Amino acid sequence: MMDTEQVGQHISQQFNADLEQIRENVLAMGGLVEEQMNRALESFIDHNAEAAAEVIGRDEKVNEFEMEIDDQCTKILAKRQPAAGDLRLIVTVLKTITDLERIGDEAEKIARLGHTISEKRSTVLNGKLHYGALEHLGGHVRKMLRGALDAFARMDVKTAIKICKLDVKADKEYDAISRQLMTYMMEEPRSISEVLDMLWTARALERIGDHANNICEYVVYMVQGEDVRHLSWDEIKRRAKKNK
Amino acid sequence: MMDTEQVGQHISQQFNADLEQIRENVLAMGGLVEEQMNRALESFIDHNAEAAAEVIGRDEKVNEFEMEIDDQCTKILAKRQPAAGDLRLIVTVLKTITDLERIGDEAEKIARLGHTISEKRSTVLNGKLHYGALEHLGGHVRKMLRGALDAFARMDVKTAIKICKLDVKADKEYDAISRQLMTYMMEEPRSISEVLDMLWTARALERIGDHANNICEYVVYMVQGEDVRHLSWDEIKRRAKKNK
Repeated sequence: MMDTEQVGQHISQQFNADLEQIRENVLAMGGLVEEQMNRALESFIDHNAEAAAEVIGRDEKVNEFEMEIDDQCTKILAKRQPAAGDLRLIVTVLKTITDLERIGDEAEKIARLGHTISEKRSTVLNGKLHYGALEHLGGHVRKMLRGALDAFARMDVKTAIKICKLDVKADKEYDAISRQLMTYMMEEPRSISEVLDMLWTARALERIGDHANNICEYVVYMVQGEDVRHLSWDEIKRRAKKNK
Repeated sequence: MMDTEQVGQHISQQFNADLEQIRENVLAMGGLVEEQMNRALESFIDHNAEAAAEVIGRDEKVNEFEMEIDDQCTKILAKRQPAAGDLRLIVTVLKTITDLERIGDEAEKIARLGHTISEKRSTVLNGKLHYGALEHLGGHVRKMLRGALDAFARMDVKTAIKICKLDVKADKEYDAISRQLMTYMMEEPRSISEVLDMLWTARALERIGDHANNICEYVVYMVQGEDVRHLSWDEIKRRAKKNK
């Protein structure tokens, strides 16, 4: 009797260690993706070709992370057959890493635009366009991504809901930037191609915000076992309260 | 002895019925999403506000499909603890429906642009811009989505690989369209806001192609048990041959 119990305990300890390993990997992947986004935006704003090359070269590492964690999840599903909360954690991880990988893709896109713009140094735009609005949006999205990873690390529904609300603001900032850039293009048709690069960058940032938002929704699902995608935030808050 | 076997057979029959149900739901969701994309493009090209409203209103149904299938997958994982090929099928479904839902989102975006453009009837663009290139890209992406769903339905690696190759062509078509539109904007600065709507539509189509591409990669993973994301297509073909 004692032996079976010990074996059981051993299995459960191994299982927890496996889960912890997966969780740590997700956070490491998140950290890498954060760095990619920051460095990519730097490459674009400072016209820094070196930073751009760095980000592009490192995207493969993001992809490797995704495949490794994916593999760990499939193995743990097959070997341990987790239930309830543990199963929800694995499903959440499988979804989260897809979004992280796509954030990596968006960062790579920004870096490619940064590379392009670093080669167009002496053009119509020089000194004319202010990157302030873009930097502001970048800071906002950075906060969202950080918050999403924190919410995941601490399985914190409150933070997750807070971040989701920030997404509405990010969307509005993006709309304002695109209106501003459109006006600029009309005034300076020669700048169109470069202004579009800026618009693509703003769009990539806005999409990173969307992915951070997705991760937060998964966290709520993981903790509360409720699927909150496609619900309004008022409804989510109402349900969160009910469950307390 | 006989009884246990019968119970086992019964469980396995029930399991197969559950899997088949999930598979059918994915295909139904795929059909709906295809329809959404076609109708959305129609709304944009024909400036058809009615079609646009239809697509926007139906997006909720796409979301419901995703949540329902997600739920079915989680339940089957918890109850049946599938292994090997069955487990890969579930993981593939979980990933596929995320891409289908996002195709639905892109279709909705196109419909919103279609709605906007239908309100701008008598503007600088009327009769000037040809939608031919956009229609062509749309046809190409439609073929990719159809092929991806076929590959999923028949678990057909060959079709999946063929579709993935089409994605390179779709990307090139998109690049050509965006260059053409940029030239047009430079010549007609007053048209910028409307030409951008067209550019966003082209971009949404290109992204739908990417999602179809993702689904094909999952199919290869499902059938061959190999993770082919982030590999070159030459490498994938090489491995596919090796496994025959």
